[in-house]
Amino acid sequence: MNIGLVGLGKMGLNLGCSMIAKGHHVIGCDIDQYSLQKFEQAGGMASQSYQELAERLSVSPRIIWMMVPAGELVDQVIEAVLPHLSPGDILIDGGNSFYKDSIRRYERVKQSGVHYLDIGTSGGTEGARNGACLMVGGEEDVYAVVEPLLRDISLAHGYLYTGPAGSGHFLKMVHNGIEYGMMQAIGEGFEILDKGPFSYDYEKVARLFNSGSVIRSWLMELLEQAFSEDPRLSTIKGVMHASGEGQWTVETALDLKISVPVIAMSLLMRYRSLDEDVFHGKVVAALRNQFGGHAVEKAD
Amino acid sequence: MNIGLVGLGKMGLNLGCSMIAKGHHVIGCDIDQYSLQKFEQAGGMASQSYQELAERLSVSPRIIWMMVPAGELVDQVIEAVLPHLSPGDILIDGGNSFYKDSIRRYERVKQSGVHYLDIGTSGGTEGARNGACLMVGGEEDVYAVVEPLLRDISLAHGYLYTGPAGSGHFLKMVHNGIEYGMMQAIGEGFEILDKGPFSYDYEKVARLFNSGSVIRSWLMELLEQAFSEDPRLSTIKGVMHASGEGQWTVETALDLKISVPVIAMSLLMRYRSLDEDVFHGKVVAALRNQFGGHAVEKAD
Repeated sequence: MNIGLVGLGKMGLNLGCSMIAKGHHVIGCDIDQYSLQKFEQAGGMASQSYQELAERLSVSPRIIWMMVPAGELVDQVIEAVLPHLSPGDILIDGGNSFYKDSIRRYERVKQSGVHYLDIGTSGGTEGARNGACLMVGGEEDVYAVVEPLLRDISLAHGYLYTGPAGSGHFLKMVHNGIEYGMMQAIGEGFEILDKGPFSYDYEKVARLFNSGSVIRSWLMELLEQAFSEDPRLSTIKGVMHASGEGQWTVETALDLKISVPVIAMSLLMRYRSLDEDVFHGKVVAALRNQFGGHAVEKAD
Repeated sequence: MNIGLVGLGKMGLNLGCSMIAKGHHVIGCDIDQYSLQKFEQAGGMASQSYQELAERLSVSPRIIWMMVPAGELVDQVIEAVLPHLSPGDILIDGGNSFYKDSIRRYERVKQSGVHYLDIGTSGGTEGARNGACLMVGGEEDVYAVVEPLLRDISLAHGYLYTGPAGSGHFLKMVHNGIEYGMMQAIGEGFEILDKGPFSYDYEKVARLFNSGSVIRSWLMELLEQAFSEDPRLSTIKGVMHASGEGQWTVETALDLKISVPVIAMSLLMRYRSLDEDVFHGKVVAALRNQFGGHAVEKAD
């Protein structure tokens, strides 16, 4: 198929290469010239504007796959691309957008007669290159048009039509919420090993856990790899950034009044890890000092 | 090798069959005659007493593998078996004992000149039958004696010498703590799907998650299987029992003053699930009624 790919970052570039490897014609677009160059070296075609992109996608319907960071940028790309599209064309958001934004964008794009799919993409850059896991929301007959492409760039059983607009990104959001909890649980387990009475070789432990244990998982495989490169992870700090999906999961749970303490706590522990010192700690220490004369630690 | 296997329950029976399949001579012992019969049908030899068991293990050192429920029963078996063993024999606890008990038993058994290994066993009954994941604590030269057996009944990389007495069961305890957190995170994710605005086919979702997503894991495969048998799990209640290892993990974390909120919360959510109604709920509802006149729900 002929695909216009907007956004050639880590995920976009790998996904584009995967499409090309399967024989698709991919015309890439990115404001970064270096990314465009890399994409051309990988066998893709580069376009300098959305107009050029649309003109070169000669087969109808045109398929435009957006792979840009979630947020306003997605709206900006949509408004910039849309004037160059025709009714019946298909616009895809393969990024990590909030599902309510995807529903709004589906409605917005529909006004121009253009179709919209929200595709949650999992598997990391490795999956984008060698077989992704795709969660597809939108109209089913539109999904049917792009299904051959999805089949080509995902693993066996690695793509699923999940229902109406927003359902793909909703599922991806929940997937990431689960991921937060699994990662925090794994992290806490190794924290106990690290502070416990025994001395373990963490790479060997992770490999053992991946060899028939109940907790074998891709995350544990990634951890085995990380320990093989840095046996005590001594070169990195325990600061856990978050890019939004965990927060949306918890906000959605609050919105729907669903009790998800472990996913919520995993998110809060990420926030906690961003602080060198904490004001609540000062408050509690001050109160303990006030009522019981307990010692406080002086700030520098 | 010649092995005496004490305890022919779900795990013991499968592990015994696995040993037999690899050409080992296994003499089983269990107070339950039906289990003994099943073991004989599977190609094992049955003995009616520890004396008979010890007599029939003619090769020195004798290897006795205990696979009995954690707790006092392990001590009882040790005290009953020990008089029939000789210095240099090897006693193995392959169950889910608390690591401090394993250290104590190692010291106790050592007084009789008998060696002791604590082996944490993961992988469930399926792993016990077709390749387990084994975490071995104790003296390294004793481990070396039984290593050929361990290699035969585990997957590739599926056994590891973890260090001195207790380190095998400590690692298995932490493994189970991680498992609690991973399972609770997965459960909460599907809770959001279940109460959210979309309708998903959970079996297909679990299969999708297992096909290249970041959260692919054996637990997710088991869940896919569970949903294939019961699409909404409508035949089972959300009551989550616990058999001790999660509690020990949290107790150990408290003992060592390690912050493990997600593993702890996973354990607490299991306890919560055991209650139909909760007294703290009555207390909070009563207080809200007292200070704000908020409605309470009357008990039947």
